[in-house]
Amino acid sequence: MIDFITLCDYAGTFAFAISGIRLASAKQFDWFGAYVVGLITAVGGGTVRDMLLNATPFWMEQPSYFIVSGLALLFVLIFRKYVIHLKNTFFIFDAIGLGLFVIVGIVKTLDFGFPMWVAIVMGTITGSFGGMIRDIIINEVPLVFRKDIYALACVIGGMAYMLCLQTNLPSAISQFIAAATVFIVRIIAVKYHISVPVLKGEE
Amino acid sequence: MIDFITLCDYAGTFAFAISGIRLASAKQFDWFGAYVVGLITAVGGGTVRDMLLNATPFWMEQPSYFIVSGLALLFVLIFRKYVIHLKNTFFIFDAIGLGLFVIVGIVKTLDFGFPMWVAIVMGTITGSFGGMIRDIIINEVPLVFRKDIYALACVIGGMAYMLCLQTNLPSAISQFIAAATVFIVRIIAVKYHISVPVLKGEE
Amino acid sequence: MIDFITLCDYAGTFAFAISGIRLASAKQFDWFGAYVVGLITAVGGGTVRDMLLNATPFWMEQPSYFIVSGLALLFVLIFRKYVIHLKNTFFIFDAIGLGLFVIVGIVKTLDFGFPMWVAIVMGTITGSFGGMIRDIIINEVPLVFRKDIYALACVIGGMAYMLCLQTNLPSAISQFIAAATVFIVRIIAVKYHISVPVLKGEE
Repeated sequence: MIDFITLCDYAGTFAFAISGIRLASAKQFDWFGAYVVGLITAVGGGTVRDMLLNATPFWMEQPSYFIVSGLALLFVLIFRKYVIHLKNTFFIFDAIGLGLFVIVGIVKTLDFGFPMWVAIVMGTITGSFGGMIRDIIINEVPLVFRKDIYALACVIGGMAYMLCLQTNLPSAISQFIAAATVFIVRIIAVKYHISVPVLKGEE
Repeated sequence: MIDFITLCDYAGTFAFAISGIRLASAKQFDWFGAYVVGLITAVGGGTVRDMLLNATPFWMEQPSYFIVSGLALLFVLIFRKYVIHLKNTFFIFDAIGLGLFVIVGIVKTLDFGFPMWVAIVMGTITGSFGGMIRDIIINEVPLVFRKDIYALACVIGGMAYMLCLQTNLPSAISQFIAAATVFIVRIIAVKYHISVPVLKGEE
Repeated sequence: MIDFITLCDYAGTFAFAISGIRLASAKQFDWFGAYVVGLITAVGGGTVRDMLLNATPFWMEQPSYFIVSGLALLFVLIFRKYVIHLKNTFFIFDAIGLGLFVIVGIVKTLDFGFPMWVAIVMGTITGSFGGMIRDIIINEVPLVFRKDIYALACVIGGMAYMLCLQTNLPSAISQFIAAATVFIVRIIAVKYHISVPVLKGEE
């Protein structure tokens, strides 16, 4: 079970890093800068969560996130021409990672003794703030708040977890259901172009 | 007294959230994204302060800030056409909130044992960093450092508090004077179009 | 020895603040806003490091960073016309400060009991995140990841320190060598226009 979760974590980190590296490359970042943006995309959400929880940022405990982000950079460098054709694969990885990141954020926050609503907020931060910081660094208006259902998918997954906890399901099953909810909401939102309505300005 | 302060806190949170939601809507954010920007505008300054103080962020202790920001979103959605006519009301609420936020930031920092100059810095961060982060997310150059007297009003209020503490005034009175100073400086700056001079570039 | 280090710290703070103030003035910031951007440029990297380490931000312990940044603002105001001719002086100061900031970040992180690779990351954050946050606030794509060798110079200096620690050199000498490495890499990169290659996008 741990192996499966670690695998999902690496897949998500890889996909998040790829998205950061690709968007940075479109803005003329150098290799090193693109690597940093990829890394921040992958670990940024969890880092904000850990700073809010007053915990040691998770990536300071083992170098694997730096290594996986490095592999993502290598991948983009070597397979530059094919990366665009792998769009769907990255999207699946990204959705898997998102589901996992949300659950990790929720479980860690509950472990720290906070109530469920704080945990759902932290799960959402874990899943979506990496992408938000990425877009801030590359000087774009954050995608996560404008297109498809992204940040909201994290909230929905968190609510699914809250419901599961009120049953007698084993916690591993509850976590799986919640992560799967995030995953499925994302897939459906993208496949059927479902978005939260744009808030019309007054002008 | 506590009720009056809570009321000011809610009015300020509401006005800060409205400003975030309106600016986000002008950038095609969806409802959920606009809500997040409104919320970050309202709690961002205090969150940075609490992270610098190594304290648990204030909004993790009770959900009222999330609820008030939600009401602000509802308000913008329902009264879209009238929001612009309420400009002056929002401005008053914003100035009240600013005064309160600055004092809360100063008092909390002094409670943590830091000297007065750190407290004034923290009061200024509490009052102005929410708006700065808002402008960073919507991809604009921060208004708080360019127009009218905003961040500087926080500093002036903090200095008023420092002066009051050197008298024998009861602390509630000192706090009221300081918050009123922030409020009045803001009102006067906007009414008479007083700005800190722009720093002219070289060349 | 302490005096020499303090001097380097002030020179670096001054040069970092000048860079923030000048870039802010090009964006029509007012005096106070330019001061804040200068200050954040100077202390931003160390502040992020201290928040990640769960330490009290270094600038909260003494007001010297605020004073040096204020002197930088005064300097720009008074010598506006000559500032551009001092480009090379500022560049030298900046490179000295960068070397020092990297070492301070590494030593502090090792003191907190983290392994060497975390310390190198923290040294790089200390040296480069101030400039990154500066560029985010003034709404530009961060220079540190696009031009010359900046963030990477921090990593190279960190690696030099790691190598030195494996010899029997006194720690002051190791620190000097590492800071000098950062300094020299920066000088050479700028003098000979050496950059990390831009990551080509796929389009």
